[in-house]
Amino acid sequence: MSMEQADRRGGTVTAALVVIGEEILSGRTKDANIAYIAAYLTRIGIQLREVRIIADLESAIVAAVNELRPRYTYVFATGGIGPTHDDVTTDAIAKAFGVPVMVDPQAVAAMRKRFTETELTPARLRMARVPEGASLIDNAISRAPGFMIGNVIVMAGVPNIMQVMLDAVSPRLEKGRPMLSRSVRLDVPEGDAADGLAALQAEHPEVQIGSYPFFHNRRLGTYVVLRCTDEAALAAAENALWKFIVAAGFPAAPGEG
Amino acid sequence: MSMEQADRRGGTVTAALVVIGEEILSGRTKDANIAYIAAYLTRIGIQLREVRIIADLESAIVAAVNELRPRYTYVFATGGIGPTHDDVTTDAIAKAFGVPVMVDPQAVAAMRKRFTETELTPARLRMARVPEGASLIDNAISRAPGFMIGNVIVMAGVPNIMQVMLDAVSPRLEKGRPMLSRSVRLDVPEGDAADGLAALQAEHPEVQIGSYPFFHNRRLGTYVVLRCTDEAALAAAENALWKFIVAAGFPAAPGEG
Repeated sequence: MSMEQADRRGGTVTAALVVIGEEILSGRTKDANIAYIAAYLTRIGIQLREVRIIADLESAIVAAVNELRPRYTYVFATGGIGPTHDDVTTDAIAKAFGVPVMVDPQAVAAMRKRFTETELTPARLRMARVPEGASLIDNAISRAPGFMIGNVIVMAGVPNIMQVMLDAVSPRLEKGRPMLSRSVRLDVPEGDAADGLAALQAEHPEVQIGSYPFFHNRRLGTYVVLRCTDEAALAAAENALWKFIVAAGFPAAPGEG
Repeated sequence: MSMEQADRRGGTVTAALVVIGEEILSGRTKDANIAYIAAYLTRIGIQLREVRIIADLESAIVAAVNELRPRYTYVFATGGIGPTHDDVTTDAIAKAFGVPVMVDPQAVAAMRKRFTETELTPARLRMARVPEGASLIDNAISRAPGFMIGNVIVMAGVPNIMQVMLDAVSPRLEKGRPMLSRSVRLDVPEGDAADGLAALQAEHPEVQIGSYPFFHNRRLGTYVVLRCTDEAALAAAENALWKFIVAAGFPAAPGEG
């Protein structure tokens, strides 16, 4: 059984994120949306399974969206819905769904709240175009909306605007049980703790036990992160982890998150 | 002709990056490697075309690597080569290539420089395992090496260690013509500049003209980025951009990069 099949059976709500942005691939801009969306979805009980960063290229967007939307409950996309020639996301999503692009009267009305008639140039009105059948996602900042079609949610790439769109669409989304987590910082390298952690994972298969090395002040250390949607199972694994740490005599402290 | 076919004909050197890290998908850790690798590859003339962030899951790693390696000159991967139970990258890459995993005597020798015999536990010796046929990538910090097999380059996820591995493997890589870029900041929203930028793009098809909105101090502005491997073509497009800006009377300034 694949992870996707297991997710569907278990009623887990999952997502992929497609970041459309040549500027991130070229290293010019540091992405600011992935960490925000990842933490936001985790909080509301949607498990982010995969992120792709791709160029502003119709064929790349169509391929990514059509590959991901049957696999996950939702596919979020950011970027490429502005007024300029390199904003190709709306047309690409319409193509992925095999529907035409239409000017949405509600979107035009929303944009009239911000722009005068002379400012509503043909270029700006491009931002009122959505794939047929899409529902709008409100943009409280600059009014040009995002949209949702099928299980695909398309938002702006500018972080402040993406964030208000995520708040706007969130009430419409199905949520799962939030993923709970605990973390512990071990001031020993991963290699010292590896056998104990492997035994812990074997004893607590329902808890996902991650081990993340860090390098700080010329010393290697390890964050151990326990994740589970069930509080009792999580607490049991955490207890076992502390017992292992004490028995091994490792310097350790609760982690930050 | 697909972009991949065009790249091969034009002798363009391309890459994809696979970030293996559940901790990034859960929002616990903010990725620090993507921007670094993107800027590094751009500098040495390798064009990063796609990034995927996936979980520490063998099936996900095998699928991503086998999908990407025929498409690009190189596939870089980070994360999951440590000593713990959740480090599954080495085995996954071996599986993707259909080869066994072997303990590499050179890797063991490198690790002996750092670890005593008692410290060289079976868990740590896991880090001396590489897929058969792989060549090692030196790790000047903690000695456990990365590796390269075929066109796939596997590095640690800890940023400092990834960075020394990237320096170590870089001399072995084929490089293309470095991508040159210029950026200009316009203090007007994208919508005001959209028609002019579209005309500019039509007149300079060999230069990639990107328009990136930003939102700062409650005002929208636009970064225009010109990218091309040919300096003369880039300069011509930049001149045309400045003429358009002056004619339109837009407040503008050279961008930072």
